[in-house]
Amino acid sequence: MKTILIIGIGAGNPEHITIQAVNALNRVDVFFIMDKGEAKGSMIDLRRDICARFITANRKYRFATAQSPQWDRHSGEYNAVIGGLNSDKQAVFEQMIAGEMQDGETAGVLVWGDPSLYDSTIRIMTDIAAAGRQAITYDVIPGISSLHALTAQHRTTLNTVGQPVEITTGRRLTEGGFPPRTDSVFVMLDGDETYRHFAEDDSLDIYWGAYVGTPDEILIAGRLKDVAGQIAQARAAAKKTHGWIMDSYLLRRRRQKD
Amino acid sequence: MKTILIIGIGAGNPEHITIQAVNALNRVDVFFIMDKGEAKGSMIDLRRDICARFITANRKYRFATAQSPQWDRHSGEYNAVIGGLNSDKQAVFEQMIAGEMQDGETAGVLVWGDPSLYDSTIRIMTDIAAAGRQAITYDVIPGISSLHALTAQHRTTLNTVGQPVEITTGRRLTEGGFPPRTDSVFVMLDGDETYRHFAEDDSLDIYWGAYVGTPDEILIAGRLKDVAGQIAQARAAAKKTHGWIMDSYLLRRRRQKD
Ligand SMILES: C[S@@+](CC[C@H](N)C(=O)[O-])C[C@H]1O[C@@H](n2cnc3c(N)ncnc32)[C@H](O)[C@@H]1O
Ligand SMILES: C[S@@+](CC[C@H](N)C(=O)[O-])C[C@H]1O[C@@H](n2cnc3c(N)ncnc32)[C@H](O)[C@@H]1O
Repeated sequence: MKTILIIGIGAGNPEHITIQAVNALNRVDVFFIMDKGEAKGSMIDLRRDICARFITANRKYRFATAQSPQWDRHSGEYNAVIGGLNSDKQAVFEQMIAGEMQDGETAGVLVWGDPSLYDSTIRIMTDIAAAGRQAITYDVIPGISSLHALTAQHRTTLNTVGQPVEITTGRRLTEGGFPPRTDSVFVMLDGDETYRHFAEDDSLDIYWGAYVGTPDEILIAGRLKDVAGQIAQARAAAKKTHGWIMDSYLLRRRRQKD
Repeated sequence: MKTILIIGIGAGNPEHITIQAVNALNRVDVFFIMDKGEAKGSMIDLRRDICARFITANRKYRFATAQSPQWDRHSGEYNAVIGGLNSDKQAVFEQMIAGEMQDGETAGVLVWGDPSLYDSTIRIMTDIAAAGRQAITYDVIPGISSLHALTAQHRTTLNTVGQPVEITTGRRLTEGGFPPRTDSVFVMLDGDETYRHFAEDDSLDIYWGAYVGTPDEILIAGRLKDVAGQIAQARAAAKKTHGWIMDSYLLRRRRQKD
């Protein structure tokens, strides 16, 4: 039997790692790393930093790195593309499990933020275990997600009193508009700055953050109408400087009386 | 100036505490504790345990305990009751800030799960700072919420590929029904077992958990139709044994082809 630990490492601040995750890191023989190309190099660096910082000095561990399969996200219908990408990723993980670890060993997959949120690792391990070609057990160690990292830095809440929250993607927000039942919407995976479609709606506030928890963190909050332009500028400048960006935001409808 | 640290401690497993939270605990001179009465005694115990376990042995700290204001949740319109409760809580916190700490000291408020999620502490501190009667600064340290704790224990994801998630309360789910745009709904604060209203809907799965992350954890998952009765029984039995219960669940609509 081989053991896989899917370990949430937080969304950028290395101190967001939990004691449970530190203990899990210290059980791992081999870390599986999916290399997504140089643009995301600093995300791989964080993983190596976390290992160096939190694994006991005399413990031996190794890295197994594979090239992450690349699929053009515009090459077909969204779910088909993601489906294809994930079955390629599953094949890569199966190869690493077969070739890079011995029976009785423990592998670790370090997942950005929390593993349950817009990440395919849990789904892939469930499928590998079900396929039965590899005898594995797997466990999930939760992490601080970008949801909790962003609201903490803005010192705001995710929900208003007793109200629901929608977590969504830029794509879904574009398609569906602002959800009618909800006053709070947390938007991730938004390369298209979907908030700009709502910039004329004077009842919305925004809490925006890029590279939250890292030394490059940028935070902007205020009435969406007032700060949308400032966010767009900061975002463009940061993308130029760093070559890539990760950002997310909370949109909140103010109550009438506010 | 007085400093208040609002520290997320995770939703039941003491090892869900982050390194950032451990560092914050070790800066605190006085911990403010709101005593909600004996039923929730074990939640206060977890706070004391966390302090004992993660604060450096020779560091001095003290506890200031106040009775949490009690409001009958059925005594009026929901928002009015919560508003009244929160302004009473604000008064209690202001008294503790005025009377229980010196200028230059740091107070800690240990918040269950993540402070951004269905918790009033951030809102109260924002109001106290704005009122200006006390010169305070405050910071928020995120925690593993019951969202991430529950999905990790079930080894499932919060969202399905590219789809939104609604986080809501039992009350809102009863009022609004299953949200039309969303296949995944995470339900908290549900004393009324609202999932039972959907038990005839054969397209729903449920991932339910009580006391997640604690030694008393109970997990049940499956087709809602098949397990609703089992959950109701387990819930009633646990409530009887412990005198109180904290539970939450993820409802998920299966896609047609599954
Ligand atoms: C593929 S999803 C993974 C989310 C991750 N599992 C989590 O728990 O946050 C990546 C998206 O998360 C958001 N994100 C992750 N880390 C972030 C950070 N440090 N600052 C801002 N947004 C972040 C961005 O919206 C990004 O597009
Ligand atoms: C007042 S809210 C506070 C939520 C908390 N701030 C968080 O981040 O999870 C309390 C609700 O959270 C959920 N909850 C908290 N801890 C839980 C646990 N260990 N197991 C199951 N549900 C939990 C329950 O639905 C409970 O009614």
